[in-house]
Amino acid sequence: MSMINKFSAVFAGLLFSFGVSAQSDSVMLKKISDDILTRGAAYENLRFICKKIGPRLSGSANGAKAVNETARMMREMGADTVYLQEVMVPKWERGGKEKAEMIMTNGKKMGLNVVALGNSEGTPSSGIRAEVIEVKNFDELERMKDQVKGKIVFYNYPMNPTFVRTFMAYGDAGRYRGQGPSRAAKYGAIGVIVRSLASNPDDFPHTGAMNYNDSFPKIPAVAISTNDADKLSNALTQKQASQVYFKTNCGMKGEVLSHNVVGEIRGSEMPNEVLTVGGHLDSWDLAEGANDDGSGCVQSMEVIRVFKALGIRPKRTVRAVMFQNEENGLRGGTKYAELAKTDGKKYVFALESDAGGFTPRGIGVTGTAEQKAKAMGWASLFEPYDVKITEGGGGADIGPLRTMGTVLSSLNPDSQRYFDIHHAATDVFEAVSRRELHLGAVVMSQMIWLVSEYGL
Amino acid sequence: MSMINKFSAVFAGLLFSFGVSAQSDSVMLKKISDDILTRGAAYENLRFICKKIGPRLSGSANGAKAVNETARMMREMGADTVYLQEVMVPKWERGGKEKAEMIMTNGKKMGLNVVALGNSEGTPSSGIRAEVIEVKNFDELERMKDQVKGKIVFYNYPMNPTFVRTFMAYGDAGRYRGQGPSRAAKYGAIGVIVRSLASNPDDFPHTGAMNYNDSFPKIPAVAISTNDADKLSNALTQKQASQVYFKTNCGMKGEVLSHNVVGEIRGSEMPNEVLTVGGHLDSWDLAEGANDDGSGCVQSMEVIRVFKALGIRPKRTVRAVMFQNEENGLRGGTKYAELAKTDGKKYVFALESDAGGFTPRGIGVTGTAEQKAKAMGWASLFEPYDVKITEGGGGADIGPLRTMGTVLSSLNPDSQRYFDIHHAATDVFEAVSRRELHLGAVVMSQMIWLVSEYGL
Repeated sequence: MSMINKFSAVFAGLLFSFGVSAQSDSVMLKKISDDILTRGAAYENLRFICKKIGPRLSGSANGAKAVNETARMMREMGADTVYLQEVMVPKWERGGKEKAEMIMTNGKKMGLNVVALGNSEGTPSSGIRAEVIEVKNFDELERMKDQVKGKIVFYNYPMNPTFVRTFMAYGDAGRYRGQGPSRAAKYGAIGVIVRSLASNPDDFPHTGAMNYNDSFPKIPAVAISTNDADKLSNALTQKQASQVYFKTNCGMKGEVLSHNVVGEIRGSEMPNEVLTVGGHLDSWDLAEGANDDGSGCVQSMEVIRVFKALGIRPKRTVRAVMFQNEENGLRGGTKYAELAKTDGKKYVFALESDAGGFTPRGIGVTGTAEQKAKAMGWASLFEPYDVKITEGGGGADIGPLRTMGTVLSSLNPDSQRYFDIHHAATDVFEAVSRRELHLGAVVMSQMIWLVSEYGL
Repeated sequence: MSMINKFSAVFAGLLFSFGVSAQSDSVMLKKISDDILTRGAAYENLRFICKKIGPRLSGSANGAKAVNETARMMREMGADTVYLQEVMVPKWERGGKEKAEMIMTNGKKMGLNVVALGNSEGTPSSGIRAEVIEVKNFDELERMKDQVKGKIVFYNYPMNPTFVRTFMAYGDAGRYRGQGPSRAAKYGAIGVIVRSLASNPDDFPHTGAMNYNDSFPKIPAVAISTNDADKLSNALTQKQASQVYFKTNCGMKGEVLSHNVVGEIRGSEMPNEVLTVGGHLDSWDLAEGANDDGSGCVQSMEVIRVFKALGIRPKRTVRAVMFQNEENGLRGGTKYAELAKTDGKKYVFALESDAGGFTPRGIGVTGTAEQKAKAMGWASLFEPYDVKITEGGGGADIGPLRTMGTVLSSLNPDSQRYFDIHHAATDVFEAVSRRELHLGAVVMSQMIWLVSEYGL
């Protein structure tokens, strides 16, 4: 693209129409946008969280460091009050690098890119070695259940590339990671391998939580990269391999004290009506957790920064919350709702950003028909930002507030690149675009401002 | 994001509603989408163009190689006919790496990241050294015109970060690159430095075409990185530097023969009605031209591939065109329209992709009110792909067709990351996402199919 004039012509029209329709709300939304796009701090805050702290699984030393540093950031932004909410979290530790290899029928061994699944128990220190039985899905597992005993079950279910929205494919394939180990253990499997949840072929294993069903043995469980899943499947099909060895060193080490971090601007007229905007502070231990969910944290803090920078005094109380332990327990979100139920305040609205720091495309809203209609009434205000208000929103951390009647909302960024880096070593600061991240913060700040002003 | 259920719940509804509304058009659009998202070749073709060919300024040896290789690709895809259109192109050569440095008042020299602007003439072999006069814009140049003689003019006009759509900012700031050199030469400047057209601070100089006004001396002109523009501005303001030295080795070397590449599927019912889908094959010499515009080329070829793969016989003729010399002359697009005017065919529709291989967000359409209304009537068909039909579309290469009454259209991808890499060494294959690129090809193929079936 070198030619400029055609674009100026197209966009000049847009500028003009914006100017004409300018009312006080759209003016305020533009002020928020201009400030963040010009001098937003989210990107540099994310750099700090990624590079100076790094991976921060809840219960880890880095997890505690992240609590202190984000509290400091919100104090420096001028939040009226910053405080911690105590929350006990499970402490899961990887315990050193995993190893896995295919045992080829010619006697050779071929390494596989592997990681333990979160929450899983490790193998014996000598590892496990067994015949591998590949299944495409749970139906196939059920059909082959008599052959599973003593073996390693390999779930080779890919994210469906034909789903345009990648979260559909994640929801569809994710059950093999979550439930696969116990469903295989039920039939006597001694270990489980799952194909990584990734949108594209690559060499990185993607971790994530699994959950044991207490009725069955807690067998070890790993993810291998999508490329290695194809290799293993081919080797099994062509009878070039029948066994796999793997060793994991992980396990649950009880519970430890951790914290949600809350930064608050007190409402000037209705201080007892609370708007929550948040992301989760914990990340998997393999990477910097830049998109999952450092982005959501720095975007939520940016709401505080921009309100203070512009001298906005919200009518209702605005709280930026860094939730703890979303990845492998949801204790932070659960604790937040538990406290909310007893403090006599009204939790009007909660907005979560936990789908990556990519260009915002929508704000999803879950509430009564009337509440949704009111939110949708703001649609035209978001048009200059190419963002739609859509039905259905929420987030894992804010989900527990729903029983209180809180309107739940999510920032919905473009989803095409998220599962390239999700829960893998590639989820690093460099994978985040400054403008994309800041645009997300713009839209979140705008939505919070509208609800603080008009309620829902 | 670890929790899955909320997303499955939200998206299950979408799946169902898609199934219910399924009609023949939406079924065909989904077939096209499924095929490209599952086995699209665009990404691997882009890898070839970037890694096996590389930079391919028109008139260069690589430019000729790209002509042959894309012709081969379209033959292998089974295009009914593949041919070249001869076109004379200007041959501009960089002639080796440029050098620039600030001369500090303390006698030290500080290097600047610099490139010559495309089409510019080089400095004398000893380079040029002069006082620098910084201007924020053309108004300031006019006010200071009496001080310009014998100096180097430094246009320090940033892309405006508050424009949500980055092409607005590009159009706004781009005139300093295009017209700046001659406007400074008019007042006796001996050289020009422009701040790179980049959305974010970085260390990479971004090149691009400038155009001399023949009434004034053809003075040398360079771009420096945004970070270095800030450094230079600070040094000038604080009187730590007043002079800059720079040396460029570039210049025009006459004209040479080059080619547009055309791959065609002949229309089964109206072969004389032609639909053009294209991108430009030439790229700047600094990088692989992955987004500008390798993406548009491989997406256009993908239309041919998917039609052939699915056995689609379009009613009207479909032509994928790799245009030559978009970056510094537009000779390819001009020649294409010139030939179109004399071949007795009807050029119904032309769609260009030249804004990067990012997630598609819209298809812009320029035509009569009736033509636009017909295109907008297809809006609901594109909803499952999160793409809108919007008013105003076109592209530099297809622009010359407009006088024939051709409906002009553009793929409008998300624009937030484009000007991080545009015309800089960072525009490489690795900056392109496979899913984003393929989704763009999906939408282009769908639009071409609709027009091939129903006309406009």
